[in-house]
Amino acid sequence: MASSESSPSARPRVLILGGGFAGVGAAQKLADAHAEVILIDRHDYHTFQPLLYQLASGLLETTAVGHSLRDLVGHQDNTTVHQATVTGVDVDAREVRFDDLAPIAYDYLVLALGAEVDFFGTEGAADHAFPMYTLPHAVRLKDHLVERWEAADRDPALLEDGGLNIVVVGGGPTGVETAGAMTELYRSEFAKDYPDIPQEQARVTLVEAGPELFSMFEPKLRHYATKALTDRDVDVLAGERVASVSPTRVTLGSGAVLNAHTLIWGAGLQGSPVGRSIGLAPERGNRIAVGSDLTLPGHPEVFVLGDIAAIADAKTQQVLPQLGSVALQSGEHAGDTISRMIAGRRTKPFAYRDKGTMAAIGRGAACVQMLGGRTMTGKKAQFAWITVHLALLPTNQDRAKAIVDWAGAAVTHQRSGRISVRVD
Amino acid sequence: MASSESSPSARPRVLILGGGFAGVGAAQKLADAHAEVILIDRHDYHTFQPLLYQLASGLLETTAVGHSLRDLVGHQDNTTVHQATVTGVDVDAREVRFDDLAPIAYDYLVLALGAEVDFFGTEGAADHAFPMYTLPHAVRLKDHLVERWEAADRDPALLEDGGLNIVVVGGGPTGVETAGAMTELYRSEFAKDYPDIPQEQARVTLVEAGPELFSMFEPKLRHYATKALTDRDVDVLAGERVASVSPTRVTLGSGAVLNAHTLIWGAGLQGSPVGRSIGLAPERGNRIAVGSDLTLPGHPEVFVLGDIAAIADAKTQQVLPQLGSVALQSGEHAGDTISRMIAGRRTKPFAYRDKGTMAAIGRGAACVQMLGGRTMTGKKAQFAWITVHLALLPTNQDRAKAIVDWAGAAVTHQRSGRISVRVD
Repeated sequence: MASSESSPSARPRVLILGGGFAGVGAAQKLADAHAEVILIDRHDYHTFQPLLYQLASGLLETTAVGHSLRDLVGHQDNTTVHQATVTGVDVDAREVRFDDLAPIAYDYLVLALGAEVDFFGTEGAADHAFPMYTLPHAVRLKDHLVERWEAADRDPALLEDGGLNIVVVGGGPTGVETAGAMTELYRSEFAKDYPDIPQEQARVTLVEAGPELFSMFEPKLRHYATKALTDRDVDVLAGERVASVSPTRVTLGSGAVLNAHTLIWGAGLQGSPVGRSIGLAPERGNRIAVGSDLTLPGHPEVFVLGDIAAIADAKTQQVLPQLGSVALQSGEHAGDTISRMIAGRRTKPFAYRDKGTMAAIGRGAACVQMLGGRTMTGKKAQFAWITVHLALLPTNQDRAKAIVDWAGAAVTHQRSGRISVRVD
Repeated sequence: MASSESSPSARPRVLILGGGFAGVGAAQKLADAHAEVILIDRHDYHTFQPLLYQLASGLLETTAVGHSLRDLVGHQDNTTVHQATVTGVDVDAREVRFDDLAPIAYDYLVLALGAEVDFFGTEGAADHAFPMYTLPHAVRLKDHLVERWEAADRDPALLEDGGLNIVVVGGGPTGVETAGAMTELYRSEFAKDYPDIPQEQARVTLVEAGPELFSMFEPKLRHYATKALTDRDVDVLAGERVASVSPTRVTLGSGAVLNAHTLIWGAGLQGSPVGRSIGLAPERGNRIAVGSDLTLPGHPEVFVLGDIAAIADAKTQQVLPQLGSVALQSGEHAGDTISRMIAGRRTKPFAYRDKGTMAAIGRGAACVQMLGGRTMTGKKAQFAWITVHLALLPTNQDRAKAIVDWAGAAVTHQRSGRISVRVD
């Protein structure tokens, strides 16, 4: 049980808000600290976001992507976990308020509340687009797709209206991986499931505003990604943006109208609005600027991390992107720094280590760009992708089940997760 | 695509309503028949009901219990699957109407629409009890339990009010397996997850109206089940019934009031009301009486199967219980009979083969009663239970993942499925 009563022990209290990569990374680095660690999230689970698109395409299960926070950090001796929603932070009084949990005072605060999807003001997107940032987003998209196919199976007129067409917005890793997963779901699984529906009329289109997909990759990989998607029957529209969205139509900046009942938004994030609501002044994209030690200016006890933070790269001074690896490294750095502060040891500024980028496109198709510019594509890159993602999964049980699902899909082309279970 | 237009081939059309054990059993037996088989269910999945309680207790995942009907039967050459809800059956015109699918004419009809929970008029039960018959029921119960524990973690007063207490109604296999699974969830997993909550104040109570649990088992097994549950800290109340239910209180027939925010109803079923709504006259428990060939009197082309049917045992003439094994065997018999009719071969009356009964109670505790009265208990019975249930699962992928989950739970006492993911 949490409480606002003063801590009975002399241990300083570290309050972590948010159980994503940043919050969990910080908590895990504090496991051996002489501290009372409290982690709060509005859900009881951590979301392994790099695999959300595989949940949306029915390849993995909900529990492959959502992991109990009590498993991840709650079993540490010095750590407790509570499920609650933050309603206010008073950095002067050093206290946080929640919806139905008593206020908690802190000695150190870790603010890692993540982001929300940024539709960049695109007309209709907030109401009709399917974003891909949270676990419910992925489940909702999967259910919607299964229901569209079942509806088209009952009424072929839906197909003519673009009922099965998908437009994916954003040529970054989220958009490319999602488009690749969707075309694989359509062409391997749904082709068998719905033999009477002509596959060629169910289109997956990837729209990217910039001149090419994968702007963060080497040119060789950009071309590879475009070719791999095109070979898999994805229509790639670069240099084009989405102007507006309705439930059944997508209007492009050029004025062209695509018939599509599903628009997946893989384009952008902004910091959680909680930052603003708790009186912090966010910068561009609603992110909160921090110093090189990841703390709020004037508050060396307040660390702001992950997607909600605007962290400048130590070398280039450019703001780091909202990636899981940035979140995890900033979380681990903050946890380590707080441990050092409590132990009276010297601290170090944060320096992000870019370990490279990777993206899976489909069966036998992936890209890896390592630090220094080395690249891999094809089956070798897919193997690297699988190895890295298995290593990142939290438990052996998770790994074993992911192997069963990935191997099952490779061998039988079967995705057991593609059913739609609506709980009222 | 389904249609009411006349079948272009000369093959007779077999229309199967319901994708449970009976409907799927019938469809699978028709795989090689010279027939056009159409299976319709209101969901896109088949529910493996014997494992629902393991989904509710966070041990298995949704997709371990819900299996795509298109995988199970849709990939048969002569079979198509549609997701739709039956709105009317005209047995004289030989046509079925649906909510948003064109009417379908049939040559043979298999009516296997299952059951609904029967609360026997218990006051408040329809509004406040958690039944355990469908996949959404199990998910809803799991989410509710996790949310109760998270709420009690925030506010200990909930514990005093019985917020974590569970009352399970019904001393048959569903009730006993559910009570066993719940106490295991509480005492192994939640004890670790919520170390500040005193476990002994979170009670699981099993209420059975008859004098003993497991009336269908040998006396030896009845005593074993009661002792196994009691040893696992379940309060067993035999000879007691539930009179009324509110969201936080359960009133017994004796007038005693139990504080409990969760009442799980494992007590009884009645045939789907669809039978009545489509003009068939159901018998006791809303079930439709059939002849020894499982057909509707006067309609040798209409088979009524599974939980919606009142099937008399060939030997005792007693109505068979609403069990998965009865549903599966009746479905297979009907599929086989229709195949024979189409091929002009002789048909046989249905004879249910009771292969015995089994129930899992907890780690190392299960009961098996084989035909002829031989019994097994303890680890040996648990092993038999696991073997039989693995064999019943539809695919190797399902088996592999169930083994991972069961072994994971046995070794680490960890249930990855216990998170609550609400999709709005």
